[in-house]
Amino acid sequence: MKPVPSFTRGVAVLAFASAAFAPGFAHSATLGGPLTLEDEGAFFVNGRTVTSNFPGASLVTGPSAPGKITVNQMYVHYRIPAAKRGAPVVMVHGSNHTGMTYETTPDGREGWATYFARKGAPVYVVDHAGRGRSGFDPTPFNQARDQSGANPASLPTLLLATHERAWLNFRLGPSYAVPFPGLKFPVEAMEQYTMQLVPNAETSLAGIGANTVNALAALLDRIGASAVIVHSQSGVYGLDLVRRRANLVRALVTVEGGCDGFTDKDAASYFAKVPVLSLWGDNSVGAKQTVNGDARRNGCRDAVNAIKAAGGRAALAVLPDLGIRGNSHMMMMDRNNLQVADVILKWLAENAAK
Amino acid sequence: MKPVPSFTRGVAVLAFASAAFAPGFAHSATLGGPLTLEDEGAFFVNGRTVTSNFPGASLVTGPSAPGKITVNQMYVHYRIPAAKRGAPVVMVHGSNHTGMTYETTPDGREGWATYFARKGAPVYVVDHAGRGRSGFDPTPFNQARDQSGANPASLPTLLLATHERAWLNFRLGPSYAVPFPGLKFPVEAMEQYTMQLVPNAETSLAGIGANTVNALAALLDRIGASAVIVHSQSGVYGLDLVRRRANLVRALVTVEGGCDGFTDKDAASYFAKVPVLSLWGDNSVGAKQTVNGDARRNGCRDAVNAIKAAGGRAALAVLPDLGIRGNSHMMMMDRNNLQVADVILKWLAENAAK
Repeated sequence: MKPVPSFTRGVAVLAFASAAFAPGFAHSATLGGPLTLEDEGAFFVNGRTVTSNFPGASLVTGPSAPGKITVNQMYVHYRIPAAKRGAPVVMVHGSNHTGMTYETTPDGREGWATYFARKGAPVYVVDHAGRGRSGFDPTPFNQARDQSGANPASLPTLLLATHERAWLNFRLGPSYAVPFPGLKFPVEAMEQYTMQLVPNAETSLAGIGANTVNALAALLDRIGASAVIVHSQSGVYGLDLVRRRANLVRALVTVEGGCDGFTDKDAASYFAKVPVLSLWGDNSVGAKQTVNGDARRNGCRDAVNAIKAAGGRAALAVLPDLGIRGNSHMMMMDRNNLQVADVILKWLAENAAK
Repeated sequence: MKPVPSFTRGVAVLAFASAAFAPGFAHSATLGGPLTLEDEGAFFVNGRTVTSNFPGASLVTGPSAPGKITVNQMYVHYRIPAAKRGAPVVMVHGSNHTGMTYETTPDGREGWATYFARKGAPVYVVDHAGRGRSGFDPTPFNQARDQSGANPASLPTLLLATHERAWLNFRLGPSYAVPFPGLKFPVEAMEQYTMQLVPNAETSLAGIGANTVNALAALLDRIGASAVIVHSQSGVYGLDLVRRRANLVRALVTVEGGCDGFTDKDAASYFAKVPVLSLWGDNSVGAKQTVNGDARRNGCRDAVNAIKAAGGRAALAVLPDLGIRGNSHMMMMDRNNLQVADVILKWLAENAAK
C-alpha cells in the first residue's frame, strides 16, 4: 500500500483545504437541507464549587488570590428541531475529542448532530467534564509552578494523541499515513481533523471520567428518558450510565466503545430493559496494532450475549457484515457517515420507541 | 447593600436552578422565536503541526511516544440563517471564557449568537486558540512531569478566575456577593455562570494571544468582510485584527474591550475606514476595584477621539448615557441583553452597511 500523496505532501494538503473551505463552499454544501429549530442553546450540569489555593500565578493578592472555583461541570449544546418526534438523543465523544466529533466533518460535510436533528430528534451534544468548553482544574499545574517543594512527577498526565497515534488507534490504516484500501475516512482533510484533537485534561479532576458519568446522569434527570450514543473511550461511561439510570436510558448505542468490566449481574440488573447496539467499522477484525480491534470488540460481543441471555435486546453489528465497508473508528466523519447514521436511526426506531 | 439571599444560600440557588431548568422550561423559553438555518456547523482555522516530545506520559512507546501534534488552531461555530442579510458577524469572547459567552444566558434566556442570527446575520462564534474546543498544548506540563531535571517554575500559568475575582472584575458588585443596586446580571444563576469559566490555557502556546489574532485574520480571509464583536481581553485582539485586515473588518464593536497601545498612527493607517463602537456598561465610572473601569474606558475614549481626528467613524457609548442602566461587564448575559444587542444592531446598520 502506498501513502496518500495529498496527505504526505504538506503543501498539497493546504492547497486542498483552502479550496474546500473557500467562501461559499461551506455554506452551500454542509447541511443536506434547511434546519428549523424550535430551540437551540447550551447549559451546564454537574458543577461543584471547591476552594483553589492556586487558581493562577504565584500571587497571594490580585487575580490569582485563592478562592472558589467551579470544577467537574459538563457543557451541553442542544438543538431542538421544530418538527421533533421521539426521544432526545445524547451524543458523547471519545478520548482526545470534544463534541466537535458530531458536528461538521473534517472535509466540510454534515455531521450526525444536525443530521439527527433534521430527522426529528432533539439532540444534545456534550463535552466531557474536563474537556473543551467544560474546562478543567488548573490547580495542580499552578501549584507545581508556584511551590518549589512540590513534586512535578505527581502532575496529572495530559494525553494528546499524536497524528501518528491517531492514525493507528482510530484505524485509518495499518501504519502511519498509509490508509486501508477502500478507507472512507476523508484523509485529504487530515489537517482539519487533527485540529479538533484536545488533551484529556479530565485527569486534573478528582474522579477523572466518573465526572462525565455523573454529569450524564444529571443531564438525563433534567431532559428525561433519552437514547444515548457513546463512542470509544465513553463506551464504558455509557455502561456506567445505564447502571446509574437504567430507567432514563431509552437505548444505548455504543460506537466502537469498550465493554470492560461488564458482568452477567449487570446484564440481569440493569440491561434487561435497556436495548444496546454495539457498532463496529471495517478493518477491526484481526487488527492488532490498535486498541480498537479484536479484544475490545470481543468484549462487547460477550456483553451482548450476556444481555440476550438475561432476556434483553442487544446486537453486535459489524458494518461489513451489513455490506457497509471502509469505515474507520471515526465513522461519524467517514464519507458514508450518514449511511451509518441511518443504520443507527433504523435500529433506534425499531428498538427505542416507547 | 445586602448580599443577595438566593446566591449566598447555596441550597436556594440549587433549588432555583433545578426549577428553572426542569424539562419543558428551557425548550419553550430560550429562543424568542424559531430559527431556520440555511447552514450550521463548525470548522477550525490556523492550526500548525509541530513535533512534541511529551504528548502524554513518560512512555517512549505506546500512546505517548513523541510525534506530531497540532497547535494554535481556533474553533469556529457558525449559524447561517435562511433569511440572511448583511455582513457576517464574528463574536469573540474574553478572558476565562469560551464562545459560550454568546450562547444561552446563565439563567436560560436567548444569547446574542442566536439573536443576531434570527435578525438575519450569519454568525461565527469562536473559542480563542488555546481555550475550549480549540484545545491547548500539553507538552510543557507533561515535560515537567516526566523530566526530573525540568524546572516547574517555568511552567505556563493557567489562570482561572475565582468566583470572588469574577464578581469584582466582571463588575457584578463592589465586593464579593454584594450586587450593585439595580444590577441586571442574573446573579440567581451564578452556579450556571461559573460553570462556563475555563483556564486561560493559551499560555501553553508560543505567542499566547497572538494565535487568536492570526486565527481571526485567517477566518476573515475565508468568510470575507465581517463585523467583529470583541469583549474584554479580546479588545486588543480586535485592534490587532484591524491592523492586520483593515480591508476585511466591516466594523469593530468592542464590548468593554481595552485599547492599550493604540496610537495616532493606528488611527490614520488602519482605522480611518473601519468604524469602531466602544460600548460600556453601568457602574464603570469611578470603579476602582476592577480592571474594567475608568482606566480601560478612558483609554478607549482616547482611541475613539484619535480615530475621529483622523477622519474615521468611532463612538464611545456608555449605556447609562443612553438611559440603559444596571449592565455588568457581561452585558451579553444581563437581563436586558437583547436591548443591548439592539443598540449594537442599530449602530451596525448605520455604520457597517456596505
